[in-house]
Amino acid sequence: MPSYKLTYFPVRGRGEHLRLMFAYAKVQYEDNRITQDQWPALKPKTPFGQLPVLEIDGVMVEQSVALARYLAKQFGLDGKTDMERLQADVFVAHIDDLRNQYSAMFREQDPDKKAEILKNIQTNVVPSFFEKLNDRVAKNGGFTAGKTILWSDIILAEFLDALTIRKTIEPADLASKYPHLAKVKDAVFNTPSVKAYLDKRPHTDI
Amino acid sequence: MPSYKLTYFPVRGRGEHLRLMFAYAKVQYEDNRITQDQWPALKPKTPFGQLPVLEIDGVMVEQSVALARYLAKQFGLDGKTDMERLQADVFVAHIDDLRNQYSAMFREQDPDKKAEILKNIQTNVVPSFFEKLNDRVAKNGGFTAGKTILWSDIILAEFLDALTIRKTIEPADLASKYPHLAKVKDAVFNTPSVKAYLDKRPHTDI
Repeated sequence: MPSYKLTYFPVRGRGEHLRLMFAYAKVQYEDNRITQDQWPALKPKTPFGQLPVLEIDGVMVEQSVALARYLAKQFGLDGKTDMERLQADVFVAHIDDLRNQYSAMFREQDPDKKAEILKNIQTNVVPSFFEKLNDRVAKNGGFTAGKTILWSDIILAEFLDALTIRKTIEPADLASKYPHLAKVKDAVFNTPSVKAYLDKRPHTDI
Repeated sequence: MPSYKLTYFPVRGRGEHLRLMFAYAKVQYEDNRITQDQWPALKPKTPFGQLPVLEIDGVMVEQSVALARYLAKQFGLDGKTDMERLQADVFVAHIDDLRNQYSAMFREQDPDKKAEILKNIQTNVVPSFFEKLNDRVAKNGGFTAGKTILWSDIILAEFLDALTIRKTIEPADLASKYPHLAKVKDAVFNTPSVKAYLDKRPHTDI
């Protein structure tokens, strides 16, 4: 097994799906949470001035979704066929598209404009988006792309959890409107090794 | 070889890197270019209401970057090791991040706001972004991630070409400021099978 060291801020954000993958696969890693104060000194040492970075046997690599795909391959969570791998990638790409729309909203400084972008996402994007993904999981027999939990299921679970924490989706609505997505989330979060991690992880609001 | 049918609008946009990959690898496919008039009837038949879609032996799959990664695997353009594959993914993810910033600018309706977003991208994002990618290609011996052209080189080439067509980057600036990136573009576009495709492809502005 190579040595893994994950460096990220003490938030869930774009790092938590990696932490969950390590937990799910029961693979040892160093969970290096740095403060904003430490960031200016570290930033120039990172490959692209971004976090999270994962050191793989001492080689620092950035880009959290690319890293998740790499770990998925190492941990056997990437799918059994090229078509399953493709469908996992497609699912993750959709989540990333929606995440990018939220990011644009968070970047917006003007409060009126921010509210307008959020309203547009919630009204015009989210319902049909989750409906389609929910149907896809249903048709696929309860998982995002494979016949068991893959990395795309873990990414979906964390994404849904982040949305419910922010009250972007009410937990009750998630379960009633998108039951197949809610079941994926539960399947991931009820895995004993994931539960063990959740019980001990530092509390963060985001 | 499976049968491939690519359906997209008659533009380069988010489909051209796939067309270039088929050309580069000399793999037969149907290049199905549909008009905006045809789209409303087709849209509900697509998996996510989005184009491009690629039919792989009759199975329709969406998400252009995920599709490119899949084709890369089939065509032997995905890298020789897991670390090369990761680095190709990382490179593509960076390009996608910048592309998403441009997309946010194109979506903005207010002309003043649009100009402001564009100015911010051009001033604060693009120079350091291309500098870092240029350094990375230099350090890696002339390619984005491998020791030969991979799918990430083709995606970079098309992205740079699209930016120069839009005059987001002046071609002379690309060659003088980011010579290693310009060389990747030339290496891809001077490949005989790619040149043959470029000579016969329908002209489009975008």
